[in-house]
Amino acid sequence: MCGLMAVVDHPEAANLTYLGLYAQQHRGQEGVGIVCLNDDRTFSLKKGKALVSDVFRDYDFSKLPGRTSVGHVRYTTAGGSSLDNVQPIFAEISKGRVAIAHNGNLINADKLRRELIQDGAIFGTSSDTEVILHLIARTPSDIPLEEAVISALQQVQGAYSLLILFSDRLMVVRDPAGLRPLALGKLGESLVAASETCAFDLLGAEYERDVLPGELVVIPMDGKAKSYFPFKKEKSAPCIFEHVYFARPDSRVFEQNVYSVRRQMGVELARESHIEADIVVPVPDSGVTAALGYSEQARIPLELGLIRNHYVGRTFIEPMQSIRDFGVKIKHNANPEVLKGKRIVVVDDSIVRGTTSRKLVSMLRDAGAKEVHMRISSPPTMGPCYYGIDTPEKDQLIAAQKSIPEIGSYIGVDSLAYLSLEGLYKAVGVEQSKMCDACFSGEYPLGTPQQLVQIKQEQLL
Amino acid sequence: MCGLMAVVDHPEAANLTYLGLYAQQHRGQEGVGIVCLNDDRTFSLKKGKALVSDVFRDYDFSKLPGRTSVGHVRYTTAGGSSLDNVQPIFAEISKGRVAIAHNGNLINADKLRRELIQDGAIFGTSSDTEVILHLIARTPSDIPLEEAVISALQQVQGAYSLLILFSDRLMVVRDPAGLRPLALGKLGESLVAASETCAFDLLGAEYERDVLPGELVVIPMDGKAKSYFPFKKEKSAPCIFEHVYFARPDSRVFEQNVYSVRRQMGVELARESHIEADIVVPVPDSGVTAALGYSEQARIPLELGLIRNHYVGRTFIEPMQSIRDFGVKIKHNANPEVLKGKRIVVVDDSIVRGTTSRKLVSMLRDAGAKEVHMRISSPPTMGPCYYGIDTPEKDQLIAAQKSIPEIGSYIGVDSLAYLSLEGLYKAVGVEQSKMCDACFSGEYPLGTPQQLVQIKQEQLL
Amino acid sequence: MCGLMAVVDHPEAANLTYLGLYAQQHRGQEGVGIVCLNDDRTFSLKKGKALVSDVFRDYDFSKLPGRTSVGHVRYTTAGGSSLDNVQPIFAEISKGRVAIAHNGNLINADKLRRELIQDGAIFGTSSDTEVILHLIARTPSDIPLEEAVISALQQVQGAYSLLILFSDRLMVVRDPAGLRPLALGKLGESLVAASETCAFDLLGAEYERDVLPGELVVIPMDGKAKSYFPFKKEKSAPCIFEHVYFARPDSRVFEQNVYSVRRQMGVELARESHIEADIVVPVPDSGVTAALGYSEQARIPLELGLIRNHYVGRTFIEPMQSIRDFGVKIKHNANPEVLKGKRIVVVDDSIVRGTTSRKLVSMLRDAGAKEVHMRISSPPTMGPCYYGIDTPEKDQLIAAQKSIPEIGSYIGVDSLAYLSLEGLYKAVGVEQSKMCDACFSGEYPLGTPQQLVQIKQEQLL
Amino acid sequence: MCGLMAVVDHPEAANLTYLGLYAQQHRGQEGVGIVCLNDDRTFSLKKGKALVSDVFRDYDFSKLPGRTSVGHVRYTTAGGSSLDNVQPIFAEISKGRVAIAHNGNLINADKLRRELIQDGAIFGTSSDTEVILHLIARTPSDIPLEEAVISALQQVQGAYSLLILFSDRLMVVRDPAGLRPLALGKLGESLVAASETCAFDLLGAEYERDVLPGELVVIPMDGKAKSYFPFKKEKSAPCIFEHVYFARPDSRVFEQNVYSVRRQMGVELARESHIEADIVVPVPDSGVTAALGYSEQARIPLELGLIRNHYVGRTFIEPMQSIRDFGVKIKHNANPEVLKGKRIVVVDDSIVRGTTSRKLVSMLRDAGAKEVHMRISSPPTMGPCYYGIDTPEKDQLIAAQKSIPEIGSYIGVDSLAYLSLEGLYKAVGVEQSKMCDACFSGEYPLGTPQQLVQIKQEQLL
Repeated sequence: MCGLMAVVDHPEAANLTYLGLYAQQHRGQEGVGIVCLNDDRTFSLKKGKALVSDVFRDYDFSKLPGRTSVGHVRYTTAGGSSLDNVQPIFAEISKGRVAIAHNGNLINADKLRRELIQDGAIFGTSSDTEVILHLIARTPSDIPLEEAVISALQQVQGAYSLLILFSDRLMVVRDPAGLRPLALGKLGESLVAASETCAFDLLGAEYERDVLPGELVVIPMDGKAKSYFPFKKEKSAPCIFEHVYFARPDSRVFEQNVYSVRRQMGVELARESHIEADIVVPVPDSGVTAALGYSEQARIPLELGLIRNHYVGRTFIEPMQSIRDFGVKIKHNANPEVLKGKRIVVVDDSIVRGTTSRKLVSMLRDAGAKEVHMRISSPPTMGPCYYGIDTPEKDQLIAAQKSIPEIGSYIGVDSLAYLSLEGLYKAVGVEQSKMCDACFSGEYPLGTPQQLVQIKQEQLL
Repeated sequence: MCGLMAVVDHPEAANLTYLGLYAQQHRGQEGVGIVCLNDDRTFSLKKGKALVSDVFRDYDFSKLPGRTSVGHVRYTTAGGSSLDNVQPIFAEISKGRVAIAHNGNLINADKLRRELIQDGAIFGTSSDTEVILHLIARTPSDIPLEEAVISALQQVQGAYSLLILFSDRLMVVRDPAGLRPLALGKLGESLVAASETCAFDLLGAEYERDVLPGELVVIPMDGKAKSYFPFKKEKSAPCIFEHVYFARPDSRVFEQNVYSVRRQMGVELARESHIEADIVVPVPDSGVTAALGYSEQARIPLELGLIRNHYVGRTFIEPMQSIRDFGVKIKHNANPEVLKGKRIVVVDDSIVRGTTSRKLVSMLRDAGAKEVHMRISSPPTMGPCYYGIDTPEKDQLIAAQKSIPEIGSYIGVDSLAYLSLEGLYKAVGVEQSKMCDACFSGEYPLGTPQQLVQIKQEQLL
Repeated sequence: MCGLMAVVDHPEAANLTYLGLYAQQHRGQEGVGIVCLNDDRTFSLKKGKALVSDVFRDYDFSKLPGRTSVGHVRYTTAGGSSLDNVQPIFAEISKGRVAIAHNGNLINADKLRRELIQDGAIFGTSSDTEVILHLIARTPSDIPLEEAVISALQQVQGAYSLLILFSDRLMVVRDPAGLRPLALGKLGESLVAASETCAFDLLGAEYERDVLPGELVVIPMDGKAKSYFPFKKEKSAPCIFEHVYFARPDSRVFEQNVYSVRRQMGVELARESHIEADIVVPVPDSGVTAALGYSEQARIPLELGLIRNHYVGRTFIEPMQSIRDFGVKIKHNANPEVLKGKRIVVVDDSIVRGTTSRKLVSMLRDAGAKEVHMRISSPPTMGPCYYGIDTPEKDQLIAAQKSIPEIGSYIGVDSLAYLSLEGLYKAVGVEQSKMCDACFSGEYPLGTPQQLVQIKQEQLL
Repeated sequence: MCGLMAVVDHPEAANLTYLGLYAQQHRGQEGVGIVCLNDDRTFSLKKGKALVSDVFRDYDFSKLPGRTSVGHVRYTTAGGSSLDNVQPIFAEISKGRVAIAHNGNLINADKLRRELIQDGAIFGTSSDTEVILHLIARTPSDIPLEEAVISALQQVQGAYSLLILFSDRLMVVRDPAGLRPLALGKLGESLVAASETCAFDLLGAEYERDVLPGELVVIPMDGKAKSYFPFKKEKSAPCIFEHVYFARPDSRVFEQNVYSVRRQMGVELARESHIEADIVVPVPDSGVTAALGYSEQARIPLELGLIRNHYVGRTFIEPMQSIRDFGVKIKHNANPEVLKGKRIVVVDDSIVRGTTSRKLVSMLRDAGAKEVHMRISSPPTMGPCYYGIDTPEKDQLIAAQKSIPEIGSYIGVDSLAYLSLEGLYKAVGVEQSKMCDACFSGEYPLGTPQQLVQIKQEQLL
């Protein structure tokens, strides 16, 4: 879970990059970094482990003067208290100075890392992104830069949308399966790139097109951009979960408007699992759009029976024992006036561990709900994501451990239904299995790290 | 615009007060303070000029050990860069030590302040709340505490919900007109008080009743609470704008659920000024609840065509000139997919200066809206509030300067309609003119500061 | 223990005040505040509870634009976690707006405070300075400003050097006994005032003269300064402890250079209590100057056998139990090479509780000192100061509890001698008992708070 | 300019390391880092770019739980605004995880860096220390750890005292010439290491011995320490400037007490260049110890005619134009009472650019000095240091550009004399040219980076 932003050849490149990251704050709240390439080919860098607005509070952007700038917001999946995992990663390598920002996750990173280390590499971070840097660094020095990057990327497997800034050109890449989004736009004469188009909207930039799966766009500082398609043709597999939950509703992702897709999920959900009820109540903010669709299709009025506190930060001083279900309450509150005596359809985007849902349901019942029917606008989450979304391991996923009725009983609802995989694809408007739906189907288009290890072991036999 | 919170006789009083203020953060984002009364009758105090979660980040609540605690969030109406205006105000006076927290605004504060200063008082803040403190301090020392407070309050005119903490009792007061809300609740054996009941919900406290207009509740540290009604009977006039905009939808205010009232405003609005359209689009977050009602009544589907960035903080490093309408964009984004070619009803709660509405409308048109009809879920805002809401002066209010068609033309809509005052009262479910609607009607139930001056001058003739 | 600074009519008044306070940081490390009077007669204010350089780190002095500015550094004697006791205190009173900064301590503040409170005053701080403000505020409004201030000051007893900034003039006052220092200087055309002349040196200002005991200098913003001597002639009693310890050696205080006086104390000390020894070792930094004089007079070479860590801040994370005498060690270290086998005269300015001296002596012995003779460049500290120096109460003062031989035995020295009171006056070059030497002699020239109470009680009989 | 600290096998290792760095703060004020090795063989790390006491203010040392800990304070010689150059540097390499802290400077780092980069290495810092890490990482994996480190160090030229912490052992190394200090001590059963022994004194640890030039001490976590001397025998050349200026006077460095050596420099200086004068005035703090020796030898009384402000921090908001020589004044003040009409010998440790000396002399003259004779307790600084002291380049060094009389005339003194190189060695008590005196003599015992390049070029011919 990360967000990317680049601005090429603009007098306020870093300031705009900051705003583009700000618009994509939902893609990563743990850390932010911006690197710019200055006129004299040096790089300037600012990183921090906090929200974009906090790291850059009162920041003097004249310290990031370059006309081309690359930024990153991250959600730290791995631990590590140091600053080092905040991206862009900056290094000096055989090809000169380079900064790299990565959204996605490599599945053969551990193996490559071990090999590289065995071969004398030193790793300063625990990030898989550093593997890419080493692979580029180790290509023979007489190989042109594009080929070096291509050769490096041909060795990695997994999901990657990348911004790679060298001292004379920016490279923008999307992996052959196109798992994570990456879009190109124009701001006047300047080229911009972002994970989500909502960043363009804030800047007043115009969306041009998505970087294509397997495309490498090379943008020289003093010339015209050029596209390469250096990878073996692969089945494209953009991540369907971006539509279900991750992307901002006002973004265009994989050439589809997220809001419209998400609303249609609610429509399909109502079609599949209609139930008699008095009101539809979304879990804010994640369930609101689907609930709208559900309400319309089911002809059951939408009511905001759960209210979200939008000032919620990340650190609270909890009272010792006074407040039951504190964690849920600090974020949500139920509105008894709306709920009392009502049969309720609660709509949310997904159930992960089940603990939050369970508390919300109990909150609804305490507020007087007569019946609580939960409807989930995606299929049961059966497996972790190895391609860049921070889902817990299988043993933490309630749907991998219990049947749907068991889940319903655990979270305390009168009925529980999920959207089917068919329904989900219908909502997205894409032919089934044309996207990565591994977290729902268990079918991992690029394989899993475990499979890689297994293949290796089998080859050894 | 302020929020109050008190917890009486609880081992974690200050921590709970902090959470209660946190739930009421929307009532004041500029400053927060908590005072507690310790076992040895000393007071401890913590204040700061930032969000509740920032001022108390990593705070060690053992520094506020007392079992009774009073807190305040404030929106600084007046200027002043010092910390002094953050409440509770703490002082030593003839009645001992005292801390006072105030929601509301006195209309004769300037006059009283001048008189008190003339009479030798020193004012350390620019707040009208300090006037009350001086009046209490100046009652003869042989007068009992309750009478001293009553005598002080009989001299002030205006809106006040007050928490006054002495070293042996807490007083909870609402002005005779009951302009600002104030509710009492129970948390186990402990009494709690708050401006809005959403604070009770977070703590798991139960709402008991509103403090009545003109009621003074005295809660001794070692005895039973007692109520006084010391003021001349006055027409009660609770602020209708709490329902329109200010209170959180999940709160109960003036014995009405805010969400239900606000939704009904949308219903009435649709009844009064229906228009043919394809979709209803709320301005988030303020217009969402009314839009729901409008959509239902008008049978026009609701669409979230405007998206709000919930990470918006208060300080941004704006780019120099690159981004048109930056201020609006950082907060809202339009969703062209939803809006393109559509006839749109935009619902918002009010129009103040008209500048934001104008930018939003332009954003909707840029996104391809065919028609934009704005519907406002309250009557035109014609005058400032002198009773505690931070509305600008008359010459800044577009509705005080222009006719409705002129406003519509200024903000660039195809049609504009406001909810009528009748419709508003109908939505609230209260007989007309039973509340303070001065900002809409120009009828100020307690008069204006200007009238006070005038009366004074007439008396001098 | 506080320091004052004022700059009148200078385009960079607040910035210079900050530097003047910075030079006087040793007079108060707990809090700092600066108020300036702007062209439009408003005041701007910045306060904080930290070192001058920390509170004003990256500060934008354009927020303190006024051409006349008053500042204060303070050492919080009383408790209180709030910001309120940081000076200057700012208030609105009958005479308009006023800011006051105070060095010294009033002995009848408690009585006046009680009377004022009884009479309806509210006190927002626990500081005795606020008493002065109330007394000024309560003079009848038709009395001219100078007379109001004079009348107020005639009611207070104790030590006060004051800067009082009104919206049209600055008043600079020293109490009739002249207990605390206050000097006037010139910076080009601008008048400056400071507790110590080292502040003038930093600014490049020239010392003009001391404010005289009992003098009130009134400096109108638009006219010429004028002096008043409104008090009954009293015996002047400037504080001799400023010379012993408190003032910076490069300052001129009470018309004497502190360094020269302090060095002479060492000379007198050597004359009075010479002993055979190999080296003279000062306790840095307080004992260095006197040790120089001692060494010269005694013809025993000076050696820096104790080294001070100048990076010592105020907060340390102490290890649990590993380090004996941690508190002393973090500040001082002994140099065994210099000390081993030597007979040592250790020179310090005073012994308060005896605990630090004891640890230092033990450190010297551990480093191999053969004999340790302690010589103190002032008489035994017998009583607390009621006039503004932060000395502990009598029961904490080792010299008030033990005889000199007992003290010597407690701190573990081979011999101990103090400078006599006669010797001290000889060093200062002032006739005996012409200064306040209460902490040594027990003779309080202005009486003690206890005596005031006693006199009152006797009058009641 | 850096300081090292290590604590092995102690329950409060990181807390003690922090204190040891605190005692060595003078060796590097720009950044500090501490790494500890935890029981489970993971590492924890805390770094920051500020003073030790600021980076670790309120720090919770339970976040650095390991029983063995390594720390570093640094003075950033190269630019770079990122955190990356703060040490210890932590990385994962073929030999496992490793943290490295370095005091000194390599002269062939640039060449090695270029070669390593050419060979595929990525550099995340601009520090020469990272070169060592890469060299270790690249030794074949079957080579034992000690040999790998030895082989790496055999490739580097220059000055290095190193702490290298692996997951099962700590290595402590000093380069063959022993340029920078490094001492070993005992704290109970725990071994400690530090650049200067003042760190031991604070902890109450006992100095055992210096790490010898060319010695590698390997301390396994679960066994006994073992020494290796893997390098070709070289002439040892400890840095004489540590004695002149850099080390704390209470430290033992290269088996000599710094204070005693520095004092003797003053004695030798007085012998060599005696002049008739009234007083000896040190430039505090650097000149005080030598001035003591000078004063004693010359039988001219020492006077503290220059006072230093010990609250000086690093950031000041300078006034625009009001104060002449602001930079010097904020740090020092002259005491006219002491100086007026006097013939003065000013003693300082060195003159670098001459600008500060010039301002100090002008300050002394303004204070009334009749004659100013400057005496420097080291020879003229003729060349930069390539071995770890931050001296400016030759064209910035006044002594490399001007003759002594010219310097005297530039800084405005009546006479100027330096200590001779012979005198300096006499003071240190070491045979001449047994130490590195390159900054004075221009004879670089390990060569210069320029010579390395030249040799290389000659070989190519």
